[in-house]
Amino acid sequence: MRAVDIIMKKRDGAELSREELAFIVTGYVSGDIPEYQVSSWLMAVFFRGMSFRETADLTELMLRSGSVMDLSGIAGPFVDKHSTGGVGDKVSLVLAPIAAACGIRVPMMSGRALGHTGGTLDKLESIPGYTTRLDEKRFREYLERDGFAMTGQTDAIVPADKKLYSLRDVTATVESVPLITASILSKKVAEGAEALVFDVKSGPGAFMKTVADAERLANSLVKTGQAMGKRIVGVITDMTEPLGDKVGNFLEVEESIDCLKGKGPADMMEVTLRLSAWMLVAGGKARDVAEAESMCREAVDSGRAYELFERNVRSQGGDADRMLSLCGSYRSGFSRELKAPSAGWIESIDAYKIGLAGVYLGVGRNKTTDPVAPDVGFVFSRKKGAKVAAGDTIATVYGRDAASLDAAWPLVSGSLSIGAAAPATSPLVIKEITAL
Amino acid sequence: MRAVDIIMKKRDGAELSREELAFIVTGYVSGDIPEYQVSSWLMAVFFRGMSFRETADLTELMLRSGSVMDLSGIAGPFVDKHSTGGVGDKVSLVLAPIAAACGIRVPMMSGRALGHTGGTLDKLESIPGYTTRLDEKRFREYLERDGFAMTGQTDAIVPADKKLYSLRDVTATVESVPLITASILSKKVAEGAEALVFDVKSGPGAFMKTVADAERLANSLVKTGQAMGKRIVGVITDMTEPLGDKVGNFLEVEESIDCLKGKGPADMMEVTLRLSAWMLVAGGKARDVAEAESMCREAVDSGRAYELFERNVRSQGGDADRMLSLCGSYRSGFSRELKAPSAGWIESIDAYKIGLAGVYLGVGRNKTTDPVAPDVGFVFSRKKGAKVAAGDTIATVYGRDAASLDAAWPLVSGSLSIGAAAPATSPLVIKEITAL
Repeated sequence: MRAVDIIMKKRDGAELSREELAFIVTGYVSGDIPEYQVSSWLMAVFFRGMSFRETADLTELMLRSGSVMDLSGIAGPFVDKHSTGGVGDKVSLVLAPIAAACGIRVPMMSGRALGHTGGTLDKLESIPGYTTRLDEKRFREYLERDGFAMTGQTDAIVPADKKLYSLRDVTATVESVPLITASILSKKVAEGAEALVFDVKSGPGAFMKTVADAERLANSLVKTGQAMGKRIVGVITDMTEPLGDKVGNFLEVEESIDCLKGKGPADMMEVTLRLSAWMLVAGGKARDVAEAESMCREAVDSGRAYELFERNVRSQGGDADRMLSLCGSYRSGFSRELKAPSAGWIESIDAYKIGLAGVYLGVGRNKTTDPVAPDVGFVFSRKKGAKVAAGDTIATVYGRDAASLDAAWPLVSGSLSIGAAAPATSPLVIKEITAL
Repeated sequence: MRAVDIIMKKRDGAELSREELAFIVTGYVSGDIPEYQVSSWLMAVFFRGMSFRETADLTELMLRSGSVMDLSGIAGPFVDKHSTGGVGDKVSLVLAPIAAACGIRVPMMSGRALGHTGGTLDKLESIPGYTTRLDEKRFREYLERDGFAMTGQTDAIVPADKKLYSLRDVTATVESVPLITASILSKKVAEGAEALVFDVKSGPGAFMKTVADAERLANSLVKTGQAMGKRIVGVITDMTEPLGDKVGNFLEVEESIDCLKGKGPADMMEVTLRLSAWMLVAGGKARDVAEAESMCREAVDSGRAYELFERNVRSQGGDADRMLSLCGSYRSGFSRELKAPSAGWIESIDAYKIGLAGVYLGVGRNKTTDPVAPDVGFVFSRKKGAKVAAGDTIATVYGRDAASLDAAWPLVSGSLSIGAAAPATSPLVIKEITAL
């Protein structure tokens, strides 16, 4: 077998066998196949795509390049949720304790902020003392005791994805549905979940800009995950404007606490309850999503979900009392108000521009090694559909210093569109694809 | 400027600016842009193609990566011919002295056998003493004195092509019309020719398997060459069966001498005279191709073309007397006859299979560093359209040893198709595209 023949075969539109895929993946991980062959193969995959069989084989080969989390001895069901990334997307922080309160065990491995999208690990680490670096022993212990645990991906999990992803990033081969599918799914399967709910974001603030693209990815995740023997739900949700009223690191912890205490914004609650509900259905804890949603609501109303959240904060080293005392006041001293330039209705607040502005403010980062700030971001007082007078405050924006506010401002003010009439409403949950 | 953005732009189907192409080419040659980015860009070019403007820019950037042959002080016109490679294609050996005899100066830089195609340098080096390693001083001297000179490409000529070609070879990005165009044209322009005739072979024994593909390449060469200020002719010729009656290294020298002495096979003469004639037209030595063809024929009939061939052999160190004495007898001791398995008409002799068989025999090679043998190959006594009885000899095949004949034999016997009726004839010169 020669790498060049496999590249040529894919280039010419043929389906690769499992053996051929294994030759590329294992050869790349071992260093036998050079990066320049892998990158031209990746570009051929970008253009030619992959069958579901190929995607499932690739996912499994990537999965096998590393170790799989051992959850044996802990009672399941293990269900996790994964979002393709958005702005103000703090769903994981609220959903994990809700699902846990309903009897699901959530072995959650999350990522960090990159580009315009936020990262669950960065948000959690804005809680004083909280650590997301858990060894397997502690991860298992907290998962069993609290119903969920939050950690980053260890180096032992899918090393093939780390190598491939960094190569894709510099060779313009990121935007390929089968490659995205294999990357996401191999990591999620490696963390030991039996069922998975994918929140595939769609819109300007998402990786998939159109519903059609989001649907392609959701379908690929569902079908490929199913081929790997998992129960899968793919939910396409809107990411046109930021989710919730707060965007930042600790600001999003704050809003998560509000949500868990029954005081969350409507859009956040709608998306979170729907995704949590699907976790319950996928985990066999409810017959249908309506029943599941009322169970999730009850977990919030009863205070059980918040209780589990606080328990997790303490388990993972966080100072819960200090966290609570910081709520409402943990803000950078550098702030500026975004005001309506004219009277009218807010037509949209562009999530992508808000996300990119967040990089300047210190919410996110351009390189994985850049530091982020806990106390910066956006607090929106009005969002899409609100009627405003000229000069009304729409958001308070916090930056790590004055220069960061200056740098972010063109994006911040450019994110806002004011119209002459109330904009049409559009659904937050756009489509649901299930394989249960 | 970032390489990844340029890759993405091409991937998404946009035209690259000259600056963007320069960023890639010069960055690659200098080592600033890694191979893995160049190879994914090459694959994107494979899928998206290039405009003629992009192809011309790329060609010129590659040309400028090295030095250009200085022919100043020598009287022109300088015209060269380039073939995309075939089996039994000894046209250069016959055409160069014919064109020189008609007042054209032919600064010919040729290649070596690779894969199923033969190489002019290997053929010439089968003449005892003949060297194709000429420094610039001697190349100029022989070109001026004998009207033509034959050399290999020096390292100073288009280093970008050497790097790019070896990368394309292992990343399945060879078969791209704009990349082939830039590779061929940059080298030909670098050797100082003002006008160029391209013999674009079409058929099973050629790189371009169909006339449509050959036409695409011919068009690209003509238009791009024109954009670079050269006079260009693209001639599409058939490469279904081997050209001429002899395939090998010294065997092809032998047949070239026959051609120059007026005793060449009809197919070889037809193609050679046509291509030579276009060189005269492109070089301004004849008004049209009909006039040019009779001038070329006259150069053969008068013996002037052969005389220049012998002069070149002596100039480049060859022992012309020994060459002539070897004709008809310089054959390996290991031979086998290809016989007709049944009576009928020869429908075809597959040039591709003959070319591949030649690699086993020692005519060609798989790697540029493999040695070739001078005294091996094929002598066909019958070709397409001949009526044969079962057991009639079709060819005598010479290999470097018995094992090489054994290895080649399935390809040799598989190359032959015998039919129940005389096959239809097809033209050798299929199409001519000119920009003069």
